[in-house]
This record gives sequence, C-alpha cells and structure tokens, in this order.
Amino acid sequence: MLNITTLNDPAFSPHTLNKYASLMTCANGYMGVRATHEEDYTQQVRGLYLAGLYHCAGRGETNELINLPDVVGIQLEVNGAPFTLLSGETESWQRELDFSDGELRRELIWRSASGARVRITSRRFSSMAQLPLLAMQFTVTALDEDVSLAFSTGIDGTQTNSGRQHLDELSLRVFGQQVLQGAWATQSGDAEVVITSSIQVSQQAEICFTAKNRRLMQNSTLQLKAGDSVTLEKINWIVQRSREILSLESFSRRCLNDLQTSAAMGYDALRNASRAEWHKGWQARRVVVESINQADQVALDFAHYHLAAMTPRHDERTSIAAKGLTGEGYKGHVFWDTEVFLLPYHLLTAPSTARSLLRYRYLNLPGARAKARRNGWHGALFPWESARSGEEETPEFAAINIRTGLRQKIASAQAEHHLVADIAWAVVNYWHATHDEAFMRSEGVSLLTETATFWISRAVEVNGRLELHDVIGPDEYTEHVNNNAFTNYMAWHNVAQALYFVPQFGELQPGFAARADDFLQRLWLPEPDAQGVLAQDDTFMGKPTIDLAKYKAKAGKQTILLDYSRAEVNEMQILKQADVVMLNYMLPERFSTAACLANLAYYEPRTIHDSSLSKAIHGIVSARCGQLADGYRQWRDGTLIDLGDEPHSSDDGIHAAATGAIWLGAVEGFAGLSICNGELHLAPALPVEWQRLCVPICWHGVSLTLDITPEAVTLHSAADVRLWLWGTEIVVQGQQRYSRADFFNAEIGTATREGAE
Amino acid sequence: MLNITTLNDPAFSPHTLNKYASLMTCANGYMGVRATHEEDYTQQVRGLYLAGLYHCAGRGETNELINLPDVVGIQLEVNGAPFTLLSGETESWQRELDFSDGELRRELIWRSASGARVRITSRRFSSMAQLPLLAMQFTVTALDEDVSLAFSTGIDGTQTNSGRQHLDELSLRVFGQQVLQGAWATQSGDAEVVITSSIQVSQQAEICFTAKNRRLMQNSTLQLKAGDSVTLEKINWIVQRSREILSLESFSRRCLNDLQTSAAMGYDALRNASRAEWHKGWQARRVVVESINQADQVALDFAHYHLAAMTPRHDERTSIAAKGLTGEGYKGHVFWDTEVFLLPYHLLTAPSTARSLLRYRYLNLPGARAKARRNGWHGALFPWESARSGEEETPEFAAINIRTGLRQKIASAQAEHHLVADIAWAVVNYWHATHDEAFMRSEGVSLLTETATFWISRAVEVNGRLELHDVIGPDEYTEHVNNNAFTNYMAWHNVAQALYFVPQFGELQPGFAARADDFLQRLWLPEPDAQGVLAQDDTFMGKPTIDLAKYKAKAGKQTILLDYSRAEVNEMQILKQADVVMLNYMLPERFSTAACLANLAYYEPRTIHDSSLSKAIHGIVSARCGQLADGYRQWRDGTLIDLGDEPHSSDDGIHAAATGAIWLGAVEGFAGLSICNGELHLAPALPVEWQRLCVPICWHGVSLTLDITPEAVTLHSAADVRLWLWGTEIVVQGQQRYSRADFFNAEIGTATREGAE
Repeated sequence: MLNITTLNDPAFSPHTLNKYASLMTCANGYMGVRATHEEDYTQQVRGLYLAGLYHCAGRGETNELINLPDVVGIQLEVNGAPFTLLSGETESWQRELDFSDGELRRELIWRSASGARVRITSRRFSSMAQLPLLAMQFTVTALDEDVSLAFSTGIDGTQTNSGRQHLDELSLRVFGQQVLQGAWATQSGDAEVVITSSIQVSQQAEICFTAKNRRLMQNSTLQLKAGDSVTLEKINWIVQRSREILSLESFSRRCLNDLQTSAAMGYDALRNASRAEWHKGWQARRVVVESINQADQVALDFAHYHLAAMTPRHDERTSIAAKGLTGEGYKGHVFWDTEVFLLPYHLLTAPSTARSLLRYRYLNLPGARAKARRNGWHGALFPWESARSGEEETPEFAAINIRTGLRQKIASAQAEHHLVADIAWAVVNYWHATHDEAFMRSEGVSLLTETATFWISRAVEVNGRLELHDVIGPDEYTEHVNNNAFTNYMAWHNVAQALYFVPQFGELQPGFAARADDFLQRLWLPEPDAQGVLAQDDTFMGKPTIDLAKYKAKAGKQTILLDYSRAEVNEMQILKQADVVMLNYMLPERFSTAACLANLAYYEPRTIHDSSLSKAIHGIVSARCGQLADGYRQWRDGTLIDLGDEPHSSDDGIHAAATGAIWLGAVEGFAGLSICNGELHLAPALPVEWQRLCVPICWHGVSLTLDITPEAVTLHSAADVRLWLWGTEIVVQGQQRYSRADFFNAEIGTATREGAE
Repeated sequence: MLNITTLNDPAFSPHTLNKYASLMTCANGYMGVRATHEEDYTQQVRGLYLAGLYHCAGRGETNELINLPDVVGIQLEVNGAPFTLLSGETESWQRELDFSDGELRRELIWRSASGARVRITSRRFSSMAQLPLLAMQFTVTALDEDVSLAFSTGIDGTQTNSGRQHLDELSLRVFGQQVLQGAWATQSGDAEVVITSSIQVSQQAEICFTAKNRRLMQNSTLQLKAGDSVTLEKINWIVQRSREILSLESFSRRCLNDLQTSAAMGYDALRNASRAEWHKGWQARRVVVESINQADQVALDFAHYHLAAMTPRHDERTSIAAKGLTGEGYKGHVFWDTEVFLLPYHLLTAPSTARSLLRYRYLNLPGARAKARRNGWHGALFPWESARSGEEETPEFAAINIRTGLRQKIASAQAEHHLVADIAWAVVNYWHATHDEAFMRSEGVSLLTETATFWISRAVEVNGRLELHDVIGPDEYTEHVNNNAFTNYMAWHNVAQALYFVPQFGELQPGFAARADDFLQRLWLPEPDAQGVLAQDDTFMGKPTIDLAKYKAKAGKQTILLDYSRAEVNEMQILKQADVVMLNYMLPERFSTAACLANLAYYEPRTIHDSSLSKAIHGIVSARCGQLADGYRQWRDGTLIDLGDEPHSSDDGIHAAATGAIWLGAVEGFAGLSICNGELHLAPALPVEWQRLCVPICWHGVSLTLDITPEAVTLHSAADVRLWLWGTEIVVQGQQRYSRADFFNAEIGTATREGAE
C-alpha cells in the first residue's frame, strides 16, 4: 500500500488558473497536457505538447515546443447559459491530481445565474501504458430540474504559442457520428501531427459537426431529466509522423484504428492499464519521508510524479525541457538544468534514462562542434538552450531595459559556457554509478574529449598562466567576467577527467595529453582566502554591496530589475545564485566543510535566490555541513517555488530543475549521498522535523534502499555494494542496520554491524 | 441640425459580444477596430484591420485581412479582482455607437464580488481626419470607498486570425514613461506595420513595462480615493510601411513624431477634427425617412455610417471587403457585392469613389487575364474572391459534408463567372451617371473589351446556337448548370455594351466586332413562358420541390445544409437567392412589370433567402412593381440581417452588401430610382409606413435632392438635370414640386410644375 498523496487545487480563482494548469499537468514523458479547465477562461493558457516537437515560427524566433491543437476544451451551455465559474454560484468544489496515476479530477456543483443546478464531474489522464493516448470523461448531472444542455468539443487548431502559429492545416475529417480527425504539418514541413478523437455522448443527443477557422467541432444538444446524468467520453490519440514510411493517408488510417481500439476499451480499462505502469515507477523510486510537515511528502511525491511525467524515455533525440511538458516557459528548451539537477535522479534510480539523456548530448555533438568553430574555438560548445537539433536556440532578447526603453540582449548563449563542463561532470558521474563500459568507449570518450578540447582552446594566456575570459557563471546577474571560479574549477575538472578516462576507454588524440597537461598545470584556479572564501571572479570582490533584504523577500521574482538595469546590477555584489556554493556542491571532494561554511556565510547575504536553482543547492551544502536547520529551511523554500502560495509562480510551467532539487535535497542533503572520487558516500543526518526517510537507489546495477531514522540507517541490498557510510567504508548485502551512535561514538571508524533484522 | 441616430447595445451578454463588436466597429475606410470591450471575454474576438493589408499564412490558406496587434484591450483589477461583467454586479449599463462621428461609448457601474463599486466610462473613435489615428479614453471612478487599481494595456501581438499568425515581430520599444512602439513584418516580408501608442494616466501611478511573448505592456497601479476618477488616455498611430523610401528606423521615428503631435492635442480636440469630417459626409449623403418605425432611420443611418466606414477612399489598390473592416468573415475578400450592392451608392453620391472602386478592378486586370488563360479562355476572368493582388483567393474548402464526413470544396472560383458581367454592368452605369470620358477612354474601354472577350470565348456552340455551360449563378445552391438565365442575359448585356461603347471611346480590336455580333446573334437567351417566368437554367424546371417553410423561417442560417448535403440541394428547386429576380433588378429596361411579378410569384416560394443579398432585391423589384407592402416587408427584413435579434448574425462582421442594400432599397425601391437606357428614372412610391423620404444624389456632377411624400416629390437641383419622373421626361433646375396626383390623373404624361416653394 503506497498511500501516495494528491495535489489539491483549493479553490477556483482566475489568479491561480495557470499555476494549477502547470502543477497538475497530465504527462507521460511523451505528451504533456496542461490542467486547464474544460471551459475557457480569458487568462487560461491551454497547452498540449509532444516532447521534442519543436518548430521555429518566423524571423527573430527560435525553435519552441509547439502548442498543438487543443482537445481538452469542452464548452457547455446549461439552459442556454455558458458554463463558467465566473458567473452563477459554485456550491461545492473539489479538484485534485492523483499522483499515483496522474489522473486529474474535478467535481463541483454549479448553480447558473438563472438557477439551474448541475453537478459537473470530470477526469482525465495521459496514459503511461500507451503514450499517444489522452482519455477524458466529462459528466453533467441535473440536480433539481430538467435542463437542456449543449456541448461543443473537438479539435481546436486555433491554439498558438502566445500568438506564434507553427502548423498548417492539412485535413479535417469526420468519421460517423463520433470520430474526428485532423492532420497538421509544421510550417517548415519537417513533421506532421495527426490527432484523432472519439467523442461518445451517453445519452440520446442531436449532433452536428462544424469545420471552420481551424476548428473541427462536434456540437451536441440534449434534454437531461432531473436526477439524470450524461457523460461525454472523449478518447484522443495524438501522434507525430516524421520520416515515416507510411503515407499521411495510411498513417491517418492507422491512427484511426489505434484510436478506435482504445476507445472500445473504455475509460476505466484504459486507466487501469496506465495505473499499472505508474505503480512500477512508484515502487521502484518513491522517496518516503515521515515529517511533522505533511507537505514534505507531498513535495517528494510531486517531484516523483513530475520527474516521471517530464522525461522522454521513449526518444533519446529529446531531452528534458526547463518546464518539462507543463508549459511554454523557456520555449521548451533544454538547459544545463538537465545534467545537473535532473540527471542525478535518473542516474541513481533508472540509469538507462540517464544514459539516454547523455546520448541526447552525444547525438547533438555536431551542432556543438559547429558552435565552437563559429566562435573560433575547438571541441564542442553545446548550445546554452537546446531543442531537437542541437543548434543554439537562445532567443535574442529578454526584458525591456528600464533606462533606455530598449530590449536587453540575452548574453548566455555568448558566454555562459560552464554547461560544457557540467555535461562532462555528468558523464563522469554516469560512469561512477554504472560502470557502463560500452557507453564510455563510445559516447563517453567523445563527450569528454570534445568538451576538454573546447576548454583547452578557450583559455587565454596572461603572463604565463591560462585564464578563462569573458564568461558568465551560473550567476546570471554577473556577466562577462574573467576567471569565474565555478567555470575555471569545472573546466579544470573536465580536462582532468578527460585525461584520466579517455586513455582507459579509447585513444587520446595526438597531442591532447600534452595540451591537457599544460592546461591543468597552468589554468588559474582562484585561490580561497584564509577562511576558505573563493572570489566569484577577478573583479567581484571589489564591487559595492547593497542591502538585498527587500529583494530576497521576493526571491524568484527578479524585482531588482524593476529598480536597476542589468548593467547596474552587474556592477554590484548581487547574485541571482551563488556560483561558489554551487561549485562546493558539484565537487564535494575538493572543498572542506570549513570552506563550504565560509562560502555560505559570505555569499548567502549577497544572493537574492532569483534563480529557481539557487536555494536547494544552498540547502544541500548546508545539510552536508551539518547545518540541518538551515538546510531544511532552504529545502522547504525550494519546494515552495512551485508549491507555494505565489499565484503566478508557475504560470508558464513548473520549474523542472527545482523538482529535481526536491529529490536531490532529500537524497544528497539529508541522506547525505555524494559521489566522491568515484565512490558512493552516505552521511545521513535528518532535520529535526523528519523522523524517517526512505530512499531507493541503484548503484552499479544493484538496488539499494536506505531507511534512515535520526538514530540509524538501515540499508538493504540484493548484492554486495561497497560504499562509505559516515566516512567509513562498508560493504552492504541484505538488510543491515547501522547505528549513528556507534559510528560517531566509536573512536575507530569501523561500522558496527547489527545484522539483518 | 442633423439629429443623427445612435446604435445601442441593450445589455451585456456573452451571446451578443461579437455581434455588437461588428455592428459598432470604429472604422474610417483605412482602419477598422472591432467594438470589443476593453476587458477580455473568452468568446470575444478582437480585431484591428488595415484596408488592403492581406497576407497568406501558410499552405492551404489564402490571403486574408490581417488581424493586427491589439491596442484596445485594457485589463483592470479593482482591489485585486479582475474586472469582468461575468462576475460581481452590473448596476447600470449604457453602450452606444454615435453614428454622427463614430464614437463608441460605454458607461457602467460595477460592483465587484467583494463589494467595491466603480463607475467605468470609456470612449474611442478612429479618426476621419487623420486616418492612422485611434483615440481612446478609459475612466474609472471610485464610488463608495478608496480602491486600488491596476491597469495593464499596451500593444498585444498575440492576436491571430483564428490561430493563423501573419506577422513576425521586428522590434518592441518604450520611450519615456508613456510611449510604446512595436514593428512587425508580414511573414512574406512584403509589408511592415508600425504601431505607436501613447498611454497617459491622469493620476500618480506606479508604472512598469513588460515585453514578453509578443506583448508590450504598460502596467500601472494606483490608489484612488473615494469620489475620485482616473482616466487612461491612449492615443494610437497605426501605419503600414510598404515600398517606402524611408528605412524602418526613420519611418518608426516619423510615426513616433506623428503620434506625439496627436497625443499632445488630446482626445477632445482630435475628436472634434474627426467629427467635422464625418459631418461633411452626413450633410452630403444622408437619406432621411419619416416612418412610423423609428428603426427605419436607424437602419439608414447604420448604412450610411458603415458605407463610409468600410470604403477605402484613400487607396484605389484596395476595394471593399464583404464584411467591410468589421471582421474576418470571408477573410476580407472582395466579391461582386462591391460592384452590384455598394458601388451604386457611391456612384450616386460620390462618383469619384465609384471610379476608385472600378480602378481597383482595372488595376487587377493582369490577374483576371491570367485566370482566364489558365482556364483556356480569353479576356478577363476576375477572381471570385479578390484581395490586393487580383489573384483568385477563394479558399478550397467550406463546411463538412454531412454524409461523407469530408470537407466540401467551394466551386464558386471555378464556375461563378457572372461577376465578370457585373463589373461591366457597373462600368456602364458609371458612364451613365458621370459621363466621365477620361475614364471611359482608358479603364472603361479596357474593362468592357476584356470582359466581353471573356464571354465570347466562354460560349460553346450547340446545334448552331451559343450556350454558356457549367456555370453557377448568384444562387449558389444550384451549381454547375448550363444556360443560367442570369449569366446568359448579363453576358449578352456585357458584350452588347462593349460593342456599343468601345468604338465611341477607343478602338475595337481587330475582329472583335464580328465576334461580338455573332455572339449577340447566337447566344441562347432563355425565353420566358406565357406568364413571363424565366427558367433559372436548362434543368431547373424539371427538378422536384419541397416545402421550404422551415428553412425560410431561419433565412440566412443555411439550416437546409443540416438536413441535406449540397449535392442533394442541387437536385431540387431550392434557391439561396433567386437569380431571375436579381436579373429583373439588374436590367430593368428589359423586363415588364408583369414579367417581374410573374418571376417573383414563381421564385419567392422556392427561395430560402439564405444569402444576405436576397431579400433586399426582392424588395426592390416588388416596390418597382407597386407591391409596396411586400417591398417594405422585405426591405425591413433586409435591415434585420445585421440589426435584428439573432445574436450571432454578424459575429464575423457586418454584411457589407446588405448595408448597401438598405440604401438601395430606399433609393431604388421607394424613391424608384433606376438607370434605364442610360437615363435617370424616378418613380417614387412610399410604403404606407413612410410619410417622407429625402434622398440626396449626384447625377452628371450635379447635386440633386429628392424630397418625397406620399403626395408629391420635390426636387432640388443646382443646375439643369434631365430625368424621367413617373415615366415622363422632365428637366429640373432649382426647387420644383411635382404632385403625384397630377402625374397619374393627367391623361397626358407631362409634368405639372408647381414652381419653387
């Protein structure tokens, strides 16, 4: 009995429509369907996306995840009055996303302005068993008197990405009285999408179809007797045709057959099949916490749900978008978020998915090589924002400069190069966690060589030492600096790992070893001060500071940019996120606890946490340093990025990386998991709010569960696993309990085996 | 004192939003701005169009009038609650379009769900004095207590034509604290649009700007004391750059200057300038009626307003769209409606505009020639639907076939050729009304020759006689027939007029005279039966009839297509509009009153009037035949096409032709004006509901006013005008009263001059 939590939308409000539309998205890694209401609201942004289906809408635009024709919308009229929760009265309301199988449910009683009272119940899910399947039910019950109802639903091709249209209509077709089919092609002609919908009305109804202005609609009208219900069951089959052998006509016919087969099974049978798939994932990967804050388990379940929902396990040409499949923020592009914040989850729970995500980068090496060459460098410079092709997709402009009235250019694509080292970091961790030799011989060697080669060519010589100039670290409030500590250390790590691993799994390119050696010898690694504080870059320490309390109170909303232009922010010690703390997190073996604490103390007051990537990392580093109260507070703050009260926090999608960070915080923070020098380390230490934490992971192909209490940790492993617990090397097999007191009281660091319980 | 009427929107309703958005459009022949509310509603379709600015959005699409970025929208929050009339309470409501100067006004008192009560007043107009100018005011008054207000308005580039996006964003820019500017290019790159908006808030407010997802917005928040008002004055300058000498940058700077000059004048001064222009038009062209039905004057003022608002007098490369500038119906295309239903109004009130409309066809002759050649004919075959280039723009598909589920192809572009003769008919009438020799020597000769040449090549020989096969007449419920009476007679007229006029103003092409003579000799003109009834085509009379009462009761809604496929309708005596009655109207000198009555009697029961062009013509023919009660009833029905109660009659725009028909019905029906054998005929006869009808017209450059009562007609002319009154030739100069009794009692047909009053 898993007893998985649900997410509740506490009340209808125009202000939170889009937040919950993102948070409650039904997705299965293949498609994402925003949790919009069936009825329209002006502020409500509908969204249906297929992972990896990008298109560029015109000049000055970049590729973006296409918002496909909508099938979710159902316009209902009750006695001629349009059903909307803005008018009449909502007498009861319940809405929840069932994390256990991704079913979204709503049940409400509505009294129209003219007095007709109906119960409206709806549910939907996108199937984990059949990826192209989206199933919906919409039920109306006449509570007091007979009512006349009119439904209008179909396939609505007027959807756009904020006005950008990507699709040309190829055909609209109706089969019999209940099946609709539309086919669209991207305007570039590279891909086609076929949407087929079966709409069954459970009562006798007058039905007609309309096809006009990109909408193919079934319109049904009926009389419903008092006490009776009518259910509209809509089963949708949404697929992409690209480079298929089948003609569009044959393909469409196949879609029709697939749809009809599914529709014949009916909603409940389809849901059971999907549910069974979901349960496998929950059983294998769920993190369970016993906390005085019930919201903590909800946050962990939210993270598990979305990590499964956002990940395109079916297609290694596609990676995870910054908003998953929940919205159009960042245009569905892939950032370093994937390797640093999301990949560790997969690596430690489903390593084949981590492999697929790294394969995505490997397959996009040509674009990364081309970008490096275009800029005069060697090796691979991965695009800051990536879509399907691996070309650079970063948009040209961001917000309006408050001083000049001009739009501000986005510099990340030009200078935010640390991503190259982040990818190499993920490759190395993949090896450590899997010992996947086949991968290392091919993808691993290529990725490490190309990324290291980039850094070697990127460095410039200044008085005999090598420096990295004009970069942007993760802290995007500080642009175009020299010797950003994060970048330099990560680049050094990248080259060092290449030099270490490439000869083991392949061949070093001629001259590489010498160049790499020279780079490692001469690259300037900023030195910590006496307390261990690293300067973020060459000029950072000389900049003025201001009181950031006002902005920190609104972390994540970038309110500083309402008072200062970006150029002004750049000239002060103002951090969106703290690079050095991030570096402490990334390379735990390189920094002592004392150094980490010193950097936290220095940078935390200077960090607004306007990046959703920020607080969780501070939390993990704090927890690793034993600052559990701080760590827990920051972890909780991190969960609130999406789950907090701010009504517009997630309008254009959830923060995928923050979702990964919820898992990371629990596992790398409080379970104290880290990979140091290639080995698995555990140093569990729970915050006082937590009584227990259970984490299933996978290490070298072996399933290992960690059952942590304040007093002890019980490990369960099916085979021998060698790891370090609280600094002591142990080998786990079967179930073993390790008492915290024994470890920390014993002068000698040997583990006390208490044997299987 | 003109005492011009207004149009009232009686109450807010989601069902009538788009009807009134069309009916109350602010337009000046250059731009049209749909009368959408400032706040959004899900069903509400915003629209801002520039006459002649078309673009084709993708494969399978045709050129359509571009729905430009919106400037009308203002989102208001009162104490945090979004202002929408769907929630809270509307305590008072008034909304009207002032026909006299096209100002749209709304005043209402709204109580939010939480109890805050505000008065909201707004007004706007598009200037008749400065065509690119759209001025708006939006005022909020706090009625009971202090309120906090948030306004968000700007330039919203997310607008589409039902999901079709035509524009790429070029730049978004803010100047100071109140001017916004955006530039867009059509995706084809053929045209650019620059929109500049000044937004002044009359009270101290916190202002910030956002530029994201194609929206450039000014967001202002302020506290308003009880009893105080705040006015947001928004002045917009909307221009197109195409083939300009100025660079986009210089052009944009000029737009900024123009906008700032206007904004400095302020709303009221701008409105006065526009109002003065409107008044010139009213004084010169208004038809005044004294009727027991006040709605009759409203209908005539509605027609006058929209005839002025829809007509692009500034640009002869552009003609009048089927929905004017009020909506996207028929994609903004130009049909025969322009020449037959709209041009007569201009011809008889402002002949230079009629000339410009004919120039549009003349300038598009290359496309018409190409279309004829592509189909194996000679001369000019004008496109059934025309945009700017003169290419055929008819979409491929219409509605879904209710039997097959496939979309039905639109056949008009293939076979609805009568339009060619309609254009020639308008050229000939233009000559008669103006005696514009310069036009005839150039445009007239070309248009008559090319259209006649088309018909000569279009005819086929059958047993020695010439026939026109596979055509569609105005009645589109009967497709692909041979020898459609309307088409054959109009084609004959076209060739005859060419043969008559071309030698007078130019030179006949070699061989043309012989071919034309032969055509006139041998073209089959269907013969009337003993009563004078003409068969609509070769096969019509043999088809079965059904009872149409059910469909006639819902005339205009094409409900027959819910019961029968178009193919089935085609095989019955079912008319969308009656071709033969239309022919009786077009060529009055060819048909006796008895013949007209016989055709009305035969065809009226078989005609559903599903075309908006239908009833008004029946009304005119009835009136001309002395059937004044029928004529009046049909004229009134015609006015109700847009002004009636049907909530969705005009959602995608008003019926421009029906607007022309309101004028035609009064002038050609009850004032009895016709052009017969090139001469002006008047035969006024008022329905019993009308006590007086005053019509100003222009004939041969002379202004002539007709002041008609049941007993007499008083004519006023500044110079000698020769015309026929009730069948008697007279010459009018100065003011002269003609008593009806004198004319009809006198055995001899001479006019009784009563002298100036």
